[in-house]
Amino acid sequence: MAMFHVRMDVSIPLDLDPAVRVDTLAREKAYSQDLQRQGKWVHIWRVVGKYSNISIFDVESPDELHEILWNLPLFAYMTVEVTPLTTHPSAIPS
Amino acid sequence: MAMFHVRMDVSIPLDLDPAVRVDTLAREKAYSQDLQRQGKWVHIWRVVGKYSNISIFDVESPDELHEILWNLPLFAYMTVEVTPLTTHPSAIPS
Amino acid sequence: MAMFHVRMDVSIPLDLDPAVRVDTLAREKAYSQDLQRQGKWVHIWRVVGKYSNISIFDVESPDELHEILWNLPLFAYMTVEVTPLTTHPSAIPS
Amino acid sequence: MAMFHVRMDVSIPLDLDPAVRVDTLAREKAYSQDLQRQGKWVHIWRVVGKYSNISIFDVESPDELHEILWNLPLFAYMTVEVTPLTTHPSAIPS
Amino acid sequence: MAMFHVRMDVSIPLDLDPAVRVDTLAREKAYSQDLQRQGKWVHIWRVVGKYSNISIFDVESPDELHEILWNLPLFAYMTVEVTPLTTHPSAIPS
Amino acid sequence: MAMFHVRMDVSIPLDLDPAVRVDTLAREKAYSQDLQRQGKWVHIWRVVGKYSNISIFDVESPDELHEILWNLPLFAYMTVEVTPLTTHPSAIPS
Amino acid sequence: MAMFHVRMDVSIPLDLDPAVRVDTLAREKAYSQDLQRQGKWVHIWRVVGKYSNISIFDVESPDELHEILWNLPLFAYMTVEVTPLTTHPSAIPS
Amino acid sequence: MAMFHVRMDVSIPLDLDPAVRVDTLAREKAYSQDLQRQGKWVHIWRVVGKYSNISIFDVESPDELHEILWNLPLFAYMTVEVTPLTTHPSAIPS
Amino acid sequence: MAMFHVRMDVSIPLDLDPAVRVDTLAREKAYSQDLQRQGKWVHIWRVVGKYSNISIFDVESPDELHEILWNLPLFAYMTVEVTPLTTHPSAIPS
Amino acid sequence: MAMFHVRMDVSIPLDLDPAVRVDTLAREKAYSQDLQRQGKWVHIWRVVGKYSNISIFDVESPDELHEILWNLPLFAYMTVEVTPLTTHPSAIPS
Repeated sequence: MAMFHVRMDVSIPLDLDPAVRVDTLAREKAYSQDLQRQGKWVHIWRVVGKYSNISIFDVESPDELHEILWNLPLFAYMTVEVTPLTTHPSAIPS
Repeated sequence: MAMFHVRMDVSIPLDLDPAVRVDTLAREKAYSQDLQRQGKWVHIWRVVGKYSNISIFDVESPDELHEILWNLPLFAYMTVEVTPLTTHPSAIPS
Repeated sequence: MAMFHVRMDVSIPLDLDPAVRVDTLAREKAYSQDLQRQGKWVHIWRVVGKYSNISIFDVESPDELHEILWNLPLFAYMTVEVTPLTTHPSAIPS
Repeated sequence: MAMFHVRMDVSIPLDLDPAVRVDTLAREKAYSQDLQRQGKWVHIWRVVGKYSNISIFDVESPDELHEILWNLPLFAYMTVEVTPLTTHPSAIPS
Repeated sequence: MAMFHVRMDVSIPLDLDPAVRVDTLAREKAYSQDLQRQGKWVHIWRVVGKYSNISIFDVESPDELHEILWNLPLFAYMTVEVTPLTTHPSAIPS
Repeated sequence: MAMFHVRMDVSIPLDLDPAVRVDTLAREKAYSQDLQRQGKWVHIWRVVGKYSNISIFDVESPDELHEILWNLPLFAYMTVEVTPLTTHPSAIPS
Repeated sequence: MAMFHVRMDVSIPLDLDPAVRVDTLAREKAYSQDLQRQGKWVHIWRVVGKYSNISIFDVESPDELHEILWNLPLFAYMTVEVTPLTTHPSAIPS
Repeated sequence: MAMFHVRMDVSIPLDLDPAVRVDTLAREKAYSQDLQRQGKWVHIWRVVGKYSNISIFDVESPDELHEILWNLPLFAYMTVEVTPLTTHPSAIPS
Repeated sequence: MAMFHVRMDVSIPLDLDPAVRVDTLAREKAYSQDLQRQGKWVHIWRVVGKYSNISIFDVESPDELHEILWNLPLFAYMTVEVTPLTTHPSAIPS
Repeated sequence: MAMFHVRMDVSIPLDLDPAVRVDTLAREKAYSQDLQRQGKWVHIWRVVGKYSNISIFDVESPDELHEILWNLPLFAYMTVEVTPLTTHPSAIPS
């Protein structure tokens, strides 16, 4: 498996059609929660004071991660930073 | 409770006394694992390709987090970035 | 309690409907002053030469701080940087 | 009067003579507390996870602030960022 | 008195109504020259190759400087950096 | 499989014992060429004008990449940036 | 011959006419694949999580590379970084 | 005389009236070539992969350089960086 | 004539021989004051809170400015940023 | 042929053996002047106020440029930035 730290900073245009906005946000939430239930989107936290999240993904490969991110409903409004992770020698088995 | 994302980039001087280095690393590992067992240091991952870790802390307050970080045996050799986190509206209860 | 240093840089679109602007600024002021009276928004200073403020918050947790910031009427027009604070060893009790 | 936000990031050489270090830190604390009692050094907070402080000064002029900072015992080991402040229109009289 | 170095980078929207542009620039020039005659705006130089100026202000306090800058007709189109100055020990009295 | 783009900027201390330098460089070369023969270190180019390389790795996982990088003889003298790659939709099968 | 590493970050305006978008993307793909078949555009990878690619070009000269990049159908929507490469002393002949 | 290195990064709005674009580019070319013939605009190179140029000017003074740059037909669409040059001690007379 | 804005950030090694330090600083002050009396070094201000100055030079050419800066006794311990200036259209004759 | 813009920022350790320094500088000058006479090192200017040069190279390929730069006697003390150039459409034949 492959672990990735992903930061997503969201910037939705102020003049986006409200209906489009509502629909996109709903699809984004459903999309994320589905992946969380699959165990791929392992963690998602909101960054205090920002329209950003920090997430941890546990996926097969970078290819799979890209597919997940590329198809985020909010992708067009995001800046995404991906940091590959690996097991830390001090980590005790959860 | 208070959740914090902490990135620690370590840069140990190349000319540090090897014995001091070994001792410091051992104390760092024990220190971290003790806090992991207490449930305060919730996650620690190694950043691929770097002498860095990304950690998640679940503590009482910023005060407690500072005490934990300030007393890291490796603190003098670290650059630390702290990002406060909060629950994300899409997060499904683990 | 939890102390946070928050810098807010405001950038209101030049073509924002003037009425919306006036209303938003009024709601922002009322919102801030209410939190100041509650003792949560402890300090707010204007940065000289910029449409920015530096504020100090004294809140229960990062969660509460996020709720406060997320619901700022001007939030959509802001860049926000949050820095957690703790007591300085040299600070004399006020 | 003149209000200034000052961030001080401290980096003491690892090979500084321990006696010099202890003496300098003691003089720094006394120096700071004296100015706090004079009401010039109005606030000093520790930045969580860093050997840094954020302080607020209330002084006669930039000249006076410079004298204060230039004569900090730790000045030679500091990176200092000064941001002039002024009253915020939303601030309610303390 | 208080001396400040201020850099102003101007970026006027390309689609600004030409009449508004001409009027704003005229008011900016008059505003600046009035302050120069008062001896507050001590120096103003154009930065070669940029729509920017570097100015030196000699004012009562940061508060006064902020009022001056905040009320610049071009303020909404500016990025402003303020650097407090003080007398240099090598400066010979002019 | 997992593809990674890795940039390595090397900075060897000028006062490193020449013998240690020669030995380390030789081990680095052998280490790299062994991985190249295994097909894991797929490409390595020198960046013109810099003591840096850009490499492409094809490995099982981020874990394996970290082991490879962490054990580079020159690792202690390197700044490493890792960028996960995936197949580009325009890429024609080689 | 001359080897170049080129990173292309694409940012297509959200309000671009959909038909223009589709046509431009199709021409971009054809343009790229033609150069790949000519052996000039040697590699193209997608950067995980971003609308970006990292490519390797093998061309006659910087002049030829510029012509190729300048005439990319997507050029107007791109930020391009070019890094000249050369053979690495550790590289084993492919 | 005064030598200056000037980098000009051009960013023409995508929605600029095509006729205005064509006219501005033509005037820019004529303007530049006239100064080249006068020996003031000594060199102009295109930066590979970018809508940018690097130029060398040989003029009377910074004042003259500013007049030249300020009156570039494309000035409103440019980011300009000016670096003053002087003779290098290793330069052999051309 | 040619006007230049020069920022000098000084960083003297902590382990510099005290006698060399005292001598260098004395020569720097004399050197600067001599140029001030010649009217070339027109202004020199200390940046509040930093071992830095902002200076304005009025010299024949960039060549002359370089000679002045290159021969500063403290040059080896300085980071210098040079910004060419010209007359601002709003400046009223002093 | 291939044109490159190269900026070299030099930082020689203050404690370098003076004899080594003198010898290295002499070899650097001879090395540069030899390449200038060959017509490969076409221009070299000193950046005002810095121990830096901006040079233009006209060489066969990036490979040749790398060899030239890698073997600069001062290379170990340099930060080098290479920017490939090409003919500008406005350039008039010299």
